[in-house]
Amino acid sequence: MVVKKNRIDLNCDMGESFGPYKLGFDEQVIKFITSANVAAGFHAGDPLWMAYTVELAEKHGVGIGAQPSYPDLLGFGRRNMNCSPEEVKNYVKYQTGALSAFVTGGKLQHVKAHGALYNTAVSDPLIAEAIAEAILEIDPSLIMLILAGSKAEEALKKTGVRIARECFADRALNPDGTLVSRSIPGSVIHNVEEVVERSVRMVTEGTIMAIDGSIIDLEPDTICLHGDTPGAEKIAEAIVKGFNKANVDVRPMGSFIK
Amino acid sequence: MVVKKNRIDLNCDMGESFGPYKLGFDEQVIKFITSANVAAGFHAGDPLWMAYTVELAEKHGVGIGAQPSYPDLLGFGRRNMNCSPEEVKNYVKYQTGALSAFVTGGKLQHVKAHGALYNTAVSDPLIAEAIAEAILEIDPSLIMLILAGSKAEEALKKTGVRIARECFADRALNPDGTLVSRSIPGSVIHNVEEVVERSVRMVTEGTIMAIDGSIIDLEPDTICLHGDTPGAEKIAEAIVKGFNKANVDVRPMGSFIK
Amino acid sequence: MVVKKNRIDLNCDMGESFGPYKLGFDEQVIKFITSANVAAGFHAGDPLWMAYTVELAEKHGVGIGAQPSYPDLLGFGRRNMNCSPEEVKNYVKYQTGALSAFVTGGKLQHVKAHGALYNTAVSDPLIAEAIAEAILEIDPSLIMLILAGSKAEEALKKTGVRIARECFADRALNPDGTLVSRSIPGSVIHNVEEVVERSVRMVTEGTIMAIDGSIIDLEPDTICLHGDTPGAEKIAEAIVKGFNKANVDVRPMGSFIK
Amino acid sequence: MVVKKNRIDLNCDMGESFGPYKLGFDEQVIKFITSANVAAGFHAGDPLWMAYTVELAEKHGVGIGAQPSYPDLLGFGRRNMNCSPEEVKNYVKYQTGALSAFVTGGKLQHVKAHGALYNTAVSDPLIAEAIAEAILEIDPSLIMLILAGSKAEEALKKTGVRIARECFADRALNPDGTLVSRSIPGSVIHNVEEVVERSVRMVTEGTIMAIDGSIIDLEPDTICLHGDTPGAEKIAEAIVKGFNKANVDVRPMGSFIK
Repeated sequence: MVVKKNRIDLNCDMGESFGPYKLGFDEQVIKFITSANVAAGFHAGDPLWMAYTVELAEKHGVGIGAQPSYPDLLGFGRRNMNCSPEEVKNYVKYQTGALSAFVTGGKLQHVKAHGALYNTAVSDPLIAEAIAEAILEIDPSLIMLILAGSKAEEALKKTGVRIARECFADRALNPDGTLVSRSIPGSVIHNVEEVVERSVRMVTEGTIMAIDGSIIDLEPDTICLHGDTPGAEKIAEAIVKGFNKANVDVRPMGSFIK
Repeated sequence: MVVKKNRIDLNCDMGESFGPYKLGFDEQVIKFITSANVAAGFHAGDPLWMAYTVELAEKHGVGIGAQPSYPDLLGFGRRNMNCSPEEVKNYVKYQTGALSAFVTGGKLQHVKAHGALYNTAVSDPLIAEAIAEAILEIDPSLIMLILAGSKAEEALKKTGVRIARECFADRALNPDGTLVSRSIPGSVIHNVEEVVERSVRMVTEGTIMAIDGSIIDLEPDTICLHGDTPGAEKIAEAIVKGFNKANVDVRPMGSFIK
Repeated sequence: MVVKKNRIDLNCDMGESFGPYKLGFDEQVIKFITSANVAAGFHAGDPLWMAYTVELAEKHGVGIGAQPSYPDLLGFGRRNMNCSPEEVKNYVKYQTGALSAFVTGGKLQHVKAHGALYNTAVSDPLIAEAIAEAILEIDPSLIMLILAGSKAEEALKKTGVRIARECFADRALNPDGTLVSRSIPGSVIHNVEEVVERSVRMVTEGTIMAIDGSIIDLEPDTICLHGDTPGAEKIAEAIVKGFNKANVDVRPMGSFIK
Repeated sequence: MVVKKNRIDLNCDMGESFGPYKLGFDEQVIKFITSANVAAGFHAGDPLWMAYTVELAEKHGVGIGAQPSYPDLLGFGRRNMNCSPEEVKNYVKYQTGALSAFVTGGKLQHVKAHGALYNTAVSDPLIAEAIAEAILEIDPSLIMLILAGSKAEEALKKTGVRIARECFADRALNPDGTLVSRSIPGSVIHNVEEVVERSVRMVTEGTIMAIDGSIIDLEPDTICLHGDTPGAEKIAEAIVKGFNKANVDVRPMGSFIK
């Protein structure tokens, strides 16, 4: 067997608390991930939580990224909004800039769109490109996360933005590489061993089994973990152990993305 | 007569529009000022207006600064809020960072607190210091505007932040250098010639006459103009002409503040 | 000629100012309309402007209605948001209740969804029904405005909500009664005489000529005027005069809707 | 011993969740209280949580009141804002009206200002009167909660608003009846038996011991319980049992306030 890759990044949404409201198990999960996507105020997060979360991430040597969203605090950024590419571009700039002010040296590693904005970017190249433009104008060394194998990936290659190809360890895939809708049974994989096995295989073999049994090529740079469910850190820890056992380096994407 | 100073900066609030709402005569006034204080979303301004305003300022070669505020869109940042220094510090970071993302190269010239936050900083050293801390952590080369002769000025010297001493051309002063309350007749000077004369004298002689006829020492680095009243650009133009006649250079503060 | 109807309501959006921002010519236009759709804080308007606008409307004897929107202050409620019927229902309740507190006696005349929410309701019966449910639970005597001849009209009949059929005096229509898209030349009618003639004919004859020359049946209860363009009150006045000349009563919809 | 009163209301803040964020143990505590102060969107709460909370309160036969706040979602309404009486009046109207739309029949029992607005009302008669004016204009049968023995109580008597005198079961009092600052040791009483004993004595004897041992006269109509701490429902249950044992009726204030 040829090992496809021997490095992977593990990213997780962080800093999704707001004012008096605490959400997520950031303090536990941060120990196992290598990149934190920090909420920047449009769907969650506020200046105090951003300061706290960035400090937490820096303390653990985790790569820090902004997680810009549609302006939808009431809906946690999960509802699609019919924003123009120009609006999206400026919203991404605003949130990314805001987060950068909390980082020592002002330098972020990456940008990952949140929720409905991420989903729109995956399927609408104009929106994906708007995000890339924002990133390139702020700092061309910033990495943009995008669903591995999505249409957006093609569109983004033209822009010149640095890309990290993302996969989800606990989500079943359709044969075309898209995520199986959450409304379909089996869309979310709850068995930890299976999640670990799939994660490792994606990286070392570059393939994953789709929900219909067919094999999809995938070469992820980063795997998305969840930090807002009880026991999240157990899964994170198991995945890290799985990679260690398979001799895959788990490290921030900034260290290997070209 | 000894000329005290032969340079001055003229600053003005800009970008105070929001969504569908247009406020201010930015496009006219920008021709005569040297530094723009750009609203950053907490009292006015939004990502699209910030993009527009920064582009306008860059086109006119004007120094760009952030104008952070208390989070009070309903009250235009004019109402005092009992925020802790930590809250203020992080609010300033957020807004300053957000604005910086719109600037080519990401580099701002200055920060000027808005409305009630400015007034609180002038009288409360802990709040002034919180703003200075935010600035120093983001970029120690950023300049902080503060009312010339205020208590805050003393407090800020200890922090090491670069300071620009600000005066108001159209406001009467108490003998101790504070602004005469707007509720008192004569507090605002409407006569353009008088505004020009006072502006020039502040710079060239380093003095100004208080409302009781006494003479106050003042050595402003920047004079605040208003951009939201009809005819604002006429006053701005007259002030620039007055300085030209007096052989005072009108240029961005970044070029001469140490 | 048989006169189809001898009464009409004229409605207009009002109170779309916010904080320091003034929008619209409410004080002029209010003299000629019979129903005011008052913004309630989600796309425009705030408690102070709501108090002011309701007082203005009461002074002029104008029927007062709420204009609920998606929660999108940045986009003035003009961007579609993928909200569930339950979300829409509760947003409508919140805004309608909020406005009612400013009305003497607490009683509103009508509810008209704003912008993108109106457009969604016109084409999506589930959203139209969600608005109707909110209205029926608050006060079954409230009237709901809906585009005359739209699919929503059919869906709403089942709910039992009181309906006012709305037409637009200055918009060209497709043969199926829908509005011609603003991107198509001729979609907006600027000639005042033509707007007046069309308005009167809609009411007295119950018909209107579509953009292709075909004749559409329409029996409007209310015609939507615009209050945010210079000269808006001239058009409003001309329409009122046109109706007076044709012996059509211009009066609040509450007086004749069953 | 003469029994001063044989009835009491128990009120508690409810509905302080927001969007994806859940706060408080509403479902447990609601079983023991008689009046719910429901957040209305300015410091916490949103239309969906308001619908949920009102339904919960109606199911348990609890009196429903609005809890208006300063517009300060970031600070949970706990920071004083320098709002004018007119601003406060209209903010209270907006929030109270919004909540009323969720109540069957549209009728609320009471209004209790939240956090910093409550504290300001207690010490500033102009703000207390502004709240009373809002209430009287919406519905003169609404009851306004105010700290028993405060200056505000005197000011409010002139307005004609129905008043419920409120006490805190778990807070030590200064000899003048004001709350001992939370920064002073002993300000919060954690012993449940003591809280129960003080609660019962306040009602049956009309007195309470101040922190210095002196005896204060107090005749509360309602006692404020907390719903956001673990074990809150145990304390609530113990207080209800204490009142039952002392033959004090625990029932909604609307049934006995004149």
